Amino acid sequence: MVQSHKLEKRRSSGASAKSTSAEYLRKLSLEDEDDWETSSDSATSSEEGNVSSGERRSPTRRESATSINSVEMLSNELLEREASQSFEAVPHSPVQNPPVRNPPVGLGGAGRTLAAAFQASEHIPYKRAEIPEPSLTPYDKNFCKALVSMLEKRKNYLYKIHTVFSDDSWDPKELEKSGQAGDYIEASPMSMTPFKVAAREDSDIDFGMENGVYIPLNEEHSIAVPVAAKVFFSDLHDLSSMMNSAPYATFAHRRLKLLQEKFSLYQMLNSEKEFLSIKALSHRDFYNVRKIDNHVHHSACMNQKHLLRFIKKRVREEGDKPVIMRDGKVLSLKEVFESLGLSPYDLNIDVLDMHAHNTKNTTFHRFDKFNQKFNPTGEARLREIFLKTNNYVKGKFLAGITKEVFDDLAASKYQMAEYRLSIYGKSKSEWAQLASWWYDNKLVSPNVVWMVQIPRLYAIYKKSGELDNFGEFISNIFEPLFEISKCPNKDPKLVAFLDNVVGFDIVDDESRHERKVHREMPTPEEWDVEKNPAYNYYLYYIYANLYVLNSFRQKRNMSQFSFRPHAGEAGDVDHLAGAFLVANSINHGINLKKNPALQYLYYLAQVGLAMSPLSNNCLFCEYSKNPFPTFFERGLNVTLSTDDPLLIHMTKEPLVEEYSIAMQVYKLSTADISEIARNSVMQSGFPKRLKRHWVGGSKMFENNPYQSNVPDVRIQFRKECLEAEHQMVYKYGMMPSE
Amino acid sequence: MVQSHKLEKRRSSGASAKSTSAEYLRKLSLEDEDDWETSSDSATSSEEGNVSSGERRSPTRRESATSINSVEMLSNELLEREASQSFEAVPHSPVQNPPVRNPPVGLGGAGRTLAAAFQASEHIPYKRAEIPEPSLTPYDKNFCKALVSMLEKRKNYLYKIHTVFSDDSWDPKELEKSGQAGDYIEASPMSMTPFKVAAREDSDIDFGMENGVYIPLNEEHSIAVPVAAKVFFSDLHDLSSMMNSAPYATFAHRRLKLLQEKFSLYQMLNSEKEFLSIKALSHRDFYNVRKIDNHVHHSACMNQKHLLRFIKKRVREEGDKPVIMRDGKVLSLKEVFESLGLSPYDLNIDVLDMHAHNTKNTTFHRFDKFNQKFNPTGEARLREIFLKTNNYVKGKFLAGITKEVFDDLAASKYQMAEYRLSIYGKSKSEWAQLASWWYDNKLVSPNVVWMVQIPRLYAIYKKSGELDNFGEFISNIFEPLFEISKCPNKDPKLVAFLDNVVGFDIVDDESRHERKVHREMPTPEEWDVEKNPAYNYYLYYIYANLYVLNSFRQKRNMSQFSFRPHAGEAGDVDHLAGAFLVANSINHGINLKKNPALQYLYYLAQVGLAMSPLSNNCLFCEYSKNPFPTFFERGLNVTLSTDDPLLIHMTKEPLVEEYSIAMQVYKLSTADISEIARNSVMQSGFPKRLKRHWVGGSKMFENNPYQSNVPDVRIQFRKECLEAEHQMVYKYGMMPSE
Repeated sequence: MVQSHKLEKRRSSGASAKSTSAEYLRKLSLEDEDDWETSSDSATSSEEGNVSSGERRSPTRRESATSINSVEMLSNELLEREASQSFEAVPHSPVQNPPVRNPPVGLGGAGRTLAAAFQASEHIPYKRAEIPEPSLTPYDKNFCKALVSMLEKRKNYLYKIHTVFSDDSWDPKELEKSGQAGDYIEASPMSMTPFKVAAREDSDIDFGMENGVYIPLNEEHSIAVPVAAKVFFSDLHDLSSMMNSAPYATFAHRRLKLLQEKFSLYQMLNSEKEFLSIKALSHRDFYNVRKIDNHVHHSACMNQKHLLRFIKKRVREEGDKPVIMRDGKVLSLKEVFESLGLSPYDLNIDVLDMHAHNTKNTTFHRFDKFNQKFNPTGEARLREIFLKTNNYVKGKFLAGITKEVFDDLAASKYQMAEYRLSIYGKSKSEWAQLASWWYDNKLVSPNVVWMVQIPRLYAIYKKSGELDNFGEFISNIFEPLFEISKCPNKDPKLVAFLDNVVGFDIVDDESRHERKVHREMPTPEEWDVEKNPAYNYYLYYIYANLYVLNSFRQKRNMSQFSFRPHAGEAGDVDHLAGAFLVANSINHGINLKKNPALQYLYYLAQVGLAMSPLSNNCLFCEYSKNPFPTFFERGLNVTLSTDDPLLIHMTKEPLVEEYSIAMQVYKLSTADISEIARNSVMQSGFPKRLKRHWVGGSKMFENNPYQSNVPDVRIQFRKECLEAEHQMVYKYGMMPSE
Repeated sequence: MVQSHKLEKRRSSGASAKSTSAEYLRKLSLEDEDDWETSSDSATSSEEGNVSSGERRSPTRRESATSINSVEMLSNELLEREASQSFEAVPHSPVQNPPVRNPPVGLGGAGRTLAAAFQASEHIPYKRAEIPEPSLTPYDKNFCKALVSMLEKRKNYLYKIHTVFSDDSWDPKELEKSGQAGDYIEASPMSMTPFKVAAREDSDIDFGMENGVYIPLNEEHSIAVPVAAKVFFSDLHDLSSMMNSAPYATFAHRRLKLLQEKFSLYQMLNSEKEFLSIKALSHRDFYNVRKIDNHVHHSACMNQKHLLRFIKKRVREEGDKPVIMRDGKVLSLKEVFESLGLSPYDLNIDVLDMHAHNTKNTTFHRFDKFNQKFNPTGEARLREIFLKTNNYVKGKFLAGITKEVFDDLAASKYQMAEYRLSIYGKSKSEWAQLASWWYDNKLVSPNVVWMVQIPRLYAIYKKSGELDNFGEFISNIFEPLFEISKCPNKDPKLVAFLDNVVGFDIVDDESRHERKVHREMPTPEEWDVEKNPAYNYYLYYIYANLYVLNSFRQKRNMSQFSFRPHAGEAGDVDHLAGAFLVANSINHGINLKKNPALQYLYYLAQVGLAMSPLSNNCLFCEYSKNPFPTFFERGLNVTLSTDDPLLIHMTKEPLVEEYSIAMQVYKLSTADISEIARNSVMQSGFPKRLKRHWVGGSKMFENNPYQSNVPDVRIQFRKECLEAEHQMVYKYGMMPSE
């Protein structure tokens, strides 16, 4: 049934899925995790002096691709034989050297030293270790089939995002200028005039929720629909049984180890070349490559000392301002401190008591305690006053400190962030409230885009009687979005805000026990028990509604949202399986170390992982045992992010602190951290235009070392490794079973 | 022979060595590593609301002490019996609780929350684990004897420093005010008017070198003389044979493990009490406790990005200034960059190429490569221009960037440093030159005191013909010092400089192979071979001359210098044995992990270790394998220091970065890092007055949590552990052999 569905789906969803490794790779290299371009303008980038995906493929491979395309209309079984035959004819793609590029003229009139370094690096050949293909057992070949089918599934699940921003509307340099500290030109990465909202006519498509998913009621064809819940749960079941099969695990483990070996060989053979070529990069070093904090929660984005100073300042300057309502009485800031029995002078970091590692290990494996740390001095009221958007002062204080953080980012110039704001699903008014907080406080910075995080707290609201069933939770989150997308003129503030939101995230304690999902789950409307649904249940219904919403907004020529949930920080590995199918990229993913098969899939699909070793160090995984360095060596698409600077970091530059510690402890070279920083740009939701300006491209293997500080040879190596794996997996994955 | 010498020495060197554990401890707690006070004013500190050493001792113990004193005049053998007898009578000193102290009034009008935390912490009793004394084998008892004799030896070797600064001359607060960035009142921790030098009459004592050590020629009694070279080398021989005895090692290892167990038990039982009591410390947190960088080389004290910016700025602003002489031609800064084929714009961190971890592991176990990193862009000439005090521009640039570093320190307010400047021993003019560089550029900061480091490079100068024999090397270093101490009016600049120098250090690659020292070594005058003398040979002759110099300067009422060499970073463990005998404290000491017996001795004597895990991580010991956390738990007197920020650290606050990484990776609590910071104050050469202002005292167990952020209970625990060890060691160490 699944199979047939898949094929049906394939045909229906058009040409996208004619699968050969060449095809797949071309697609991969055309897509980034959330692609901000229309397929049409994918050509443009090749004019940018970067290796375009076209140039990159070797003739043999292209030919093999066409040999497949020519048999498109044949039956599947035939197709597969053809494929396998044509594949047997394909030699390993001949090794290429990375493109020779001359140092751009004018870039500071590259001096002789640089020229010398450049020449030297060019003269050192790119050395490859020749590693023969291992012979595969029938088991392994079946595994390849399973892998291919899962990679195909993921492609069918994911919604391909189309940008709505014309890339020529403005100039990155101009944007950066406008962001300098102290100077308050309001510009966001999405627009130079983020608060001007053009009037748009309403749409006549109506949406209604059916089995927990919003679908068009009076429109059939133009809106794409996601894979059905049943299908998802059964795919999930297939995936888990596959990833838990011992022989598969062995094979995946061997491949991953091989990738690791390849990398360390690569480094031994080419570190000198890398080093020289980086040296030759006029003006560019690690300090001035862009680093994006892909995973950071806004209410914890400031350093702790910063919050302390801010609170003291506010008490000094606005002590008599009414700030909170308690038992029918309105209290001023001074009175609040009175009631806490504190003078601002007394206040110290230890009273604030927000450092997760403050008391030795007390937060380790205690997500609940970690969460309590969000309350300054353990007092819910200070959190409410200073760290909430929706309070008596209308989030004025949080907005204030946010602007100070913006200034720090602007001053650093090379650090960007994707801050997460919470939507709880308790009421339909949340969106309007959040949007007007953002709009009225003019919270834009050229260094910042926004994400929305949804805490998985249905059970709590159900207990407190705020919700009847899970369906309400869903509709509280999505109805306002369909509404505003249908009638944009109803709430311009929300329209403007959504234009600056790049993705959705789901958060909360994964380690809590849950009952696994099975094929026949109750619908959200039916889910009226006090028990919290499983992680994957949340995952699917957020995904599915997001899918329809995106399709609708694309039709309406509005921005769309990527799906980048927390997954694999703790709890069941199934969370990572579900995320593999429906998520553009994820946060954490440390639990991949527990399952090689799944880890291998994440590698093959290059799913982005925004990892936070320091955060894990406080919660679920000691720093020295963190899989980050291993994942990086194996070539998984990893970045470093801070998660919660307020609770974790000591210095004024949390992201640099995160990089610095990783560099020191994991012994990373400049090329390594530059590659990690480049990954953070690629994974981010910043517009394609900026990505080109920052790393020289927005597609998987596009790179300009003069911008990214990453040697071409490094990218070339990663590309060859990935190609080799796909070559093998698809070769056997497309073979007829023996 | 050794024995008899020891006794002879004991008598000669007065009462200091009547040894019982009580006695020893009283001494210990009266001394800090380099004590800035005259024994007379040791009483004063007890008025400071701190637990004075007097109050601290339990009656039983004091009585036991007197029972020893009463038999002072008896023969040694008798003394020992008496001692042991009286000791057998001594019960374990009854457990005391840390002193209850009320929160100082007026300190921000301590609020109810703090009061509550304070009450709570006071009500939680200090919980101790009762651990019975293990029974000792005869082996162990002999070991105790050996330990006692070595502890006694160390006491006889060390020169007790007497301060010359009247503590009431100025007010720390005033000093701090004068240090704020941008405001250039010239004040040093040593004096509010560091550049005013009062004229002093000359001394008529003449000094001459005899067997490599300066001794008074026309004066017999008033100048103390150090232990003779022969004796040192034979003591060293005894110490190494002792520390390499297997049964001793086992015993020491067990004791150290026990100390570690005690600490982790202590933490389990008292972390809540600690946490609450820290919380109760109005206004004080880790960010505003003083941290002193006890081990940092001045020419590498700036962050790398800082140096890069500084160089670019200089080229922009003073490009045409002549800066260096090459092959008889004077070059301007622009011309130098010309000759390097670089434009300032091109310059980047990777071209600068000074990060030790820049290329993966290339510096690991390669001290030579590490040293090369000191050359920006690998060009000796840039190092000469920007990082030398003695060059064509008279060290103007180095002075310039140093002042910028001073500003950063002043801005941070709570970070201090002891910067090392080099004296090479190539010529007698070095001191005058260095002093006038310091004096003319007015290089004082309230956050900085100076140290002098002597590279062990005799062999190189001998090869180059600059020196005939090692004696010259010694006299080049010390003759100018005796000279200026005799006739201060000859060079007021040098006098002023020496008033700001707190200690001597010896540096260089310890890992290079060397022949061990033996009892009969040639004298420095005889040492005219091209081979470099062994580490311990350098150690002794610097120590011995420093000893006489200090004694002379004390007589002259001039400041004296502590001896704090590099030791145990690499190479033979003997280096640490030598340092144990003659050094006030040391830098590094990671090799102590290779020798439990010696490590135990360092614990018993509480020798200070200024450790730099990040530096080790680049050179000799991976971060996760660094013994720092183990040493800390066992109660060794350890601090964190940066060594070479220019080569190692990423952020603008290298010392905070060092603390932050240790805190994260080694899972240190706030109490832990505050204790480490307190150790750094105690080990430093800053005046006693400041130490009292910063941590509430300058003696081993003095502490005021409101200043140091260290809970009294922590100090109490450390004290009890040390007492217990001394109790045992001296009990058996003083017993007659069976």
